[in-house]
Amino acid sequence: MKNKITDLFGIKYPLIQGGMVWVSGHKLASAVSNSGGLGLIGAGSMYPHILEEHIIKCKKETNKPFGVNIPLFYPDLEAIIKIIIEQDVKIVFTSAGNPKTYTKFFKEKGIKVAHVVSSVKFALKAQDAGVDAVVAEGFEAGGHNGREETTTFTLIPMVKKEIEIPLLAAGGIATGRAMLAARVLGADGVQIGSRFVASEESSAHQLFKKEILKAKDGDTMLTLKELIPARLLKNKFFYDIENLYKKGANVEELKNLLGRARAKKGMFLGDLEEGELEIGQVSGLIDQIKPVKEIINEIISEYNSALNEFSVLKL
Amino acid sequence: MKNKITDLFGIKYPLIQGGMVWVSGHKLASAVSNSGGLGLIGAGSMYPHILEEHIIKCKKETNKPFGVNIPLFYPDLEAIIKIIIEQDVKIVFTSAGNPKTYTKFFKEKGIKVAHVVSSVKFALKAQDAGVDAVVAEGFEAGGHNGREETTTFTLIPMVKKEIEIPLLAAGGIATGRAMLAARVLGADGVQIGSRFVASEESSAHQLFKKEILKAKDGDTMLTLKELIPARLLKNKFFYDIENLYKKGANVEELKNLLGRARAKKGMFLGDLEEGELEIGQVSGLIDQIKPVKEIINEIISEYNSALNEFSVLKL
Repeated sequence: MKNKITDLFGIKYPLIQGGMVWVSGHKLASAVSNSGGLGLIGAGSMYPHILEEHIIKCKKETNKPFGVNIPLFYPDLEAIIKIIIEQDVKIVFTSAGNPKTYTKFFKEKGIKVAHVVSSVKFALKAQDAGVDAVVAEGFEAGGHNGREETTTFTLIPMVKKEIEIPLLAAGGIATGRAMLAARVLGADGVQIGSRFVASEESSAHQLFKKEILKAKDGDTMLTLKELIPARLLKNKFFYDIENLYKKGANVEELKNLLGRARAKKGMFLGDLEEGELEIGQVSGLIDQIKPVKEIINEIISEYNSALNEFSVLKL
Repeated sequence: MKNKITDLFGIKYPLIQGGMVWVSGHKLASAVSNSGGLGLIGAGSMYPHILEEHIIKCKKETNKPFGVNIPLFYPDLEAIIKIIIEQDVKIVFTSAGNPKTYTKFFKEKGIKVAHVVSSVKFALKAQDAGVDAVVAEGFEAGGHNGREETTTFTLIPMVKKEIEIPLLAAGGIATGRAMLAARVLGADGVQIGSRFVASEESSAHQLFKKEILKAKDGDTMLTLKELIPARLLKNKFFYDIENLYKKGANVEELKNLLGRARAKKGMFLGDLEEGELEIGQVSGLIDQIKPVKEIINEIISEYNSALNEFSVLKL
């Protein structure tokens, strides 16, 4: 029942909930932590004082470990780091930046650090920087993504081969079978995003949640590769980008179309036409909005029953 | 030891060797079949009389089942189908076309048919057409590929959910752990390509094989999406395509650059600069050229030992 990941974070299951913008507030994070996983508050879409509020509420809602995800390109990074220290947050997941900059600082404050990567090179960099664990995220993941387009199926064993520290797999994981497959490929645990977007406790807009249930394979695509690549649900906004590409758009024109607050508009305010809807390929497997507790129980019970089938798989 | 796939094809292990252009001749196919898998001759790069020669030689080299892979866009399809019937080939894998056109005909001749797809929609179409099995191939696979970019990790469970017939997973599979992970995700067996390109018996040029050993994650990319998408090793030819894209190339210009026989030039004749080098993302995990027998034994033994570790994975 225990492994490197459960020991590292002091949790029951090696299952992390991704700290996603506009989705992962205190309600989602505390529900995940209360159900045996590790909940993460997504700081990327929060003003510092909003993050502070979420941390304070999350502490009231759970006495289990939880953490905060910080995208390292956050404009007012110092302010949120100050809050994390003041509020005595014990776990930080960093992404989208250089892990060298803050890992040592966090570790000195007794904070556990995991860093999200999309390639072997950055996994090694994160390990060198002293992080406690690496999250290797495949091409199929929703939202911001790497440029190499390496998929979960190939990225996990390649990273596993090179690093010594605990490894979490992300991208394409929404079920117990996928969690087990990720562990077979070498991961010590998993980070799950999309499945939790479609939970009752996520702060995603209800219309966005319902749109996820309709998604089939092929309904998401990685785009905006000239800015920061992002996997989006194919809605009007997505096709507007595609049409701009067809006209030979340059980076400036793409930035202008993207504008500001597109993700908020789509994911938080429910504008399914003009908003940016970040979600993974695995949305094609998600067909019900459920409470977090039910989702986690379902994943763990499917994981264990898949494990039991294995006696018949001997070759 | 037996399952749907081993029963269907009369083989020992549910492991198929992809019928790849310029790589999969009689030597590779017979070596795989003699080692307990299913060898496939790749008709896509052969004139009809060359295919005939390979089939005749393969029959001499093995008394085990083997098959032929036919891309359904082959220019002289009738001629190779005639040879397959005359030579009494018992297994055909079709790809890149409508499975309706020939499946019934093959089945009436007592031939087992599998069809390669990259989406749930085409998997259902293939099942409707009456094929015996579906190969679902993920985005990470080498060579020609689907437009939806669905990865093995998400495609396999989505296809599994919808079809009744046996399912083979392809794309990103080169090891026993990956074979086991594919089965956990719902596949009855696997089709392996890249790993066999780097076998002693493949007819790939020695220089191409050595180039595969050097590949790391991020060294392949899906390109030529406006023609037929193909995953290539990033060599001079690949960057020539990229530069053409940057200049806003149209389909005609891309076709002109591609020209004819690029894959032969690279994969068969070993021109690492000007040739097209089709290979999967999993090339990053391949670091030795080995005989087929050793490759298969290694995969099966890793599969079984990974299976034995599972007792400790209980949650």
